[in-house]
Amino acid sequence: MKLKIGLSAIVAVGLMGGILQAADNIKLSPEEMKKASQIYFDRCAGCHGMLRKGALGPWIRPEPHKDKKGAMHGTKAIGTEALESIIYNGTPGGMPGWGKSGELTKEEVKLMAKFIQLPPVTPPEKSIADMKKSWKVIVPVDKRPKKPETKRNWKNYFGVVLRDVGKIAVIDGDKKEVVSVVPSGFATHILRMSKSGRYMYAIGRDGKAEVIDLWMKEPKVVAEIRTCNDARSIDTSKYKGYEDEYAVVGCYWPPSIVTLKGDTLEPIQLVSTASYTYDTGEFTREARVASIVANHHKPEWVINVKETGQVWLYNYADPRNPGIKMLMAERYLHDGGWDLSKRYFLVAANARNKVVAVDTEKGKVEAIIPTGGTKPHPGRGANVNHPKYGPIWCTGHIGSNDIVCIGTDPKKHKKYAWKVVADIKLPGEGGGNLFVKTHPKCKYIFADRPVNPDRKLQTQIYVIDKNKLKVVKTIKIPDKYLKSKDPKVKVRGPVHFEFNQKGDEVWTSIWGNKLTPTAILVYDANSLKLKKAIEDPRIITPTGKFNVYNTMNDIY
Amino acid sequence: MKLKIGLSAIVAVGLMGGILQAADNIKLSPEEMKKASQIYFDRCAGCHGMLRKGALGPWIRPEPHKDKKGAMHGTKAIGTEALESIIYNGTPGGMPGWGKSGELTKEEVKLMAKFIQLPPVTPPEKSIADMKKSWKVIVPVDKRPKKPETKRNWKNYFGVVLRDVGKIAVIDGDKKEVVSVVPSGFATHILRMSKSGRYMYAIGRDGKAEVIDLWMKEPKVVAEIRTCNDARSIDTSKYKGYEDEYAVVGCYWPPSIVTLKGDTLEPIQLVSTASYTYDTGEFTREARVASIVANHHKPEWVINVKETGQVWLYNYADPRNPGIKMLMAERYLHDGGWDLSKRYFLVAANARNKVVAVDTEKGKVEAIIPTGGTKPHPGRGANVNHPKYGPIWCTGHIGSNDIVCIGTDPKKHKKYAWKVVADIKLPGEGGGNLFVKTHPKCKYIFADRPVNPDRKLQTQIYVIDKNKLKVVKTIKIPDKYLKSKDPKVKVRGPVHFEFNQKGDEVWTSIWGNKLTPTAILVYDANSLKLKKAIEDPRIITPTGKFNVYNTMNDIY
Repeated sequence: MKLKIGLSAIVAVGLMGGILQAADNIKLSPEEMKKASQIYFDRCAGCHGMLRKGALGPWIRPEPHKDKKGAMHGTKAIGTEALESIIYNGTPGGMPGWGKSGELTKEEVKLMAKFIQLPPVTPPEKSIADMKKSWKVIVPVDKRPKKPETKRNWKNYFGVVLRDVGKIAVIDGDKKEVVSVVPSGFATHILRMSKSGRYMYAIGRDGKAEVIDLWMKEPKVVAEIRTCNDARSIDTSKYKGYEDEYAVVGCYWPPSIVTLKGDTLEPIQLVSTASYTYDTGEFTREARVASIVANHHKPEWVINVKETGQVWLYNYADPRNPGIKMLMAERYLHDGGWDLSKRYFLVAANARNKVVAVDTEKGKVEAIIPTGGTKPHPGRGANVNHPKYGPIWCTGHIGSNDIVCIGTDPKKHKKYAWKVVADIKLPGEGGGNLFVKTHPKCKYIFADRPVNPDRKLQTQIYVIDKNKLKVVKTIKIPDKYLKSKDPKVKVRGPVHFEFNQKGDEVWTSIWGNKLTPTAILVYDANSLKLKKAIEDPRIITPTGKFNVYNTMNDIY
Repeated sequence: MKLKIGLSAIVAVGLMGGILQAADNIKLSPEEMKKASQIYFDRCAGCHGMLRKGALGPWIRPEPHKDKKGAMHGTKAIGTEALESIIYNGTPGGMPGWGKSGELTKEEVKLMAKFIQLPPVTPPEKSIADMKKSWKVIVPVDKRPKKPETKRNWKNYFGVVLRDVGKIAVIDGDKKEVVSVVPSGFATHILRMSKSGRYMYAIGRDGKAEVIDLWMKEPKVVAEIRTCNDARSIDTSKYKGYEDEYAVVGCYWPPSIVTLKGDTLEPIQLVSTASYTYDTGEFTREARVASIVANHHKPEWVINVKETGQVWLYNYADPRNPGIKMLMAERYLHDGGWDLSKRYFLVAANARNKVVAVDTEKGKVEAIIPTGGTKPHPGRGANVNHPKYGPIWCTGHIGSNDIVCIGTDPKKHKKYAWKVVADIKLPGEGGGNLFVKTHPKCKYIFADRPVNPDRKLQTQIYVIDKNKLKVVKTIKIPDKYLKSKDPKVKVRGPVHFEFNQKGDEVWTSIWGNKLTPTAILVYDANSLKLKKAIEDPRIITPTGKFNVYNTMNDIY
């Protein structure tokens, strides 16, 4: 256990009789500490960091700290009452009102206001030996199918994250029926496919990685391992000669890159991402891997390190002896996707309202583009081959109603390259967009808005014409899909989109709560008509959906 | 300030009234803490680490810990009295008897026995901004000579570390007279030259880097910067197109790689070496850069990370965006040198009694060779083109009397490649060798033995015939050069060798103490006769000597 003592008003901090105590007599019992730590991990750590030094959100350690703009932070100076108010009501800067929304009780808000005035406890390290304790090959490789055992069109399967129940549904995209539901880690963040599409990988927020074999009649988890305590990203080796060979997990804590054998998840290598911020050169123990994508053209993963603002081009050709090209980019890196040519990777530096374009062929940062919006959140973005601007890539924003498109073709459309060529305003006030999505065969981009506070705006789908680069239609989700059994928590609107293999259907999830199943709605991507509501008692809190074919080929 | 509290008997640790206190009432005053911390840094940290987790020496933190062989360590369990005895008398395993040798007083030994039962204090971090506070360009680049201002043969200059007085002497190798003496950091570890030889770089144990301009009539420090709190290595960019462009410092604490502009020492980039041990995959905050060499054939530095056992091939072509190939090698890496072809770099894994051969052309570990001796310490080693074995590379050992030669030519002498082809026994008992040295034009290898406890063995030079691979002569240092003004501390024998530019003289330092100047002895490298004793009141505690021509071209 590590206590970090700042040069602050805290004079004596110790572990005394199980009570963690600061100078001004904030006391939490071991039970309170446990509860507060769990709430912190679930609700706060994403934006403020486990060490509370800030990322998308500010520094919330007890001791004072001056930020880049000269503003002072530090929870001791703010005090319990003001902290309670912030946690309860949120802030205009983007801090959610956890009390107001009903997600935390008044007592929990009070507890958290105290907790963040105590020094943060550094979470434990994890060695390869620690990982191996949790490693299970549930179905050995030689007991797995040699060819697909199913007659279904498994390449049109959708993996659907059932977030709050810790499960993954595999849905047949042709028949729109649940093929299997498998257990997963806590609040699975994303799914990825091996190059062949046969293996589906999931990563839980608790760092549990698993691989599901889609060739089985009823897809099952065939191997699992807890790679870290907190993770957000997973991908696979996609370059020729390495297909299906390796998987990689990007960890939040311990901040690291874990290479695994693709079929068994045996850990091969572990590399720390702790290093220095690209701009101020400050040591950053908590340098979290925000996202990873696999390059199809090189044996490389593009690894985006949040706090240091570095993109690491990670060569896995010799996985025990990795090569890393460290690119200095911008803070704080989050998620992103490929341009149409798949030469450039575009990643959001969300706290700086910028997008970084990485040239993976030359191994350098090609451009850093201010988006004009607030807190870009592209998911993987949406690519368009536009008649005027040529290939462009679009991202939405959490903090403003801008869907922004950026030119990505410096050869044939140099004039527009790495410039914002369109800023498409979503109707109404505020941001709240999380995902945009399109398909080369579809003439529309679809955008959600699940974290907009306005109920009406939250429950619509925004349809953007790819040529006009304008919202041409909003689709209201029918009321019957927005009902909840729990009167306290409203079912939120649609979240996340995915196309089917053919590109003629777009699927979205209704974001519910643990108490009630919600639907996955399937729209005709051309007529924009609701084609089917996939409803199943097992589909609870569906969020991300990943079509096997589109995900294995990075089609978006 | 960070306190790391182990799962040990220590129940409450805090900063209380300025007294650092553990559960069993070990108390040190702030003055005692300061003194003990300084002694720890000077005498103990090298082998045990700042965090006291062990490297060449064992774990000496208060809490218990099982080592690789299953032995338990932990200072609390050993207790004050036994610790005092170990610190005073040393151990057969290689721990020096600090009391016995007179280097620490009885009171200091007592103090250290207490100090190491307290939790270690993590030393502070250092950002690029912190570094810049100490950065001074003393002579701007445009005020420096455009061509050599001296008529001396400056390529035959020797830079000589005057270790305990924190100075560097520049000595004219032709005339054997002191050209200038310049201030340096604390206990300078090594000197390196830029590719052209014009700039001489020094790195102090305190992390102070400096560059001396040898083109000046009287060479001076033209720029300096404190890159870290503890360092051992510095080198420069030597690849075509990058000559004299960059310098690089390898830091012990904070464990990092600092790239600097070659002429001004302006910091360009800072990369952390904290990562996971190559074998057990354990996070290692204190992963110290033991040594660095510059590749002449690629824009790369070979960086040897001690605790993690990793060799990093660090590409500096785009210094803000470095490329790092991480090679898993062996623990704990220390120093080493190139083979004759300069394709292979051979580095000691001293705690494992092995040498790692790195193929820098293919970017891989070529071989890991048990030397058969104890604690190899090659310096840069000695290369021989042997009539039977072909190109071989030789290293001495601190812990045993073996000078061991390893075949380095897998193409034409495959049978001998990466095998010990000769184990040359130094006469008498015990090791104590620090450096071996030769020159392509000389038929001998010279070996010192300054840390052998036997006074007679300590004060001889061992001359090895390169063909016979046997000690053919021992040269006794004349008594008059071994006298000290301080009766308590004996002047130790010769340490470190360097050849002149022509390769017909070999120089060695008499290792004295602060109170008395000692000589640098120049031997005829063929007749083995003492040719000259360079004596000067300013030459106090001479240790490493670096001939400009030989160092810039890696001739050894």
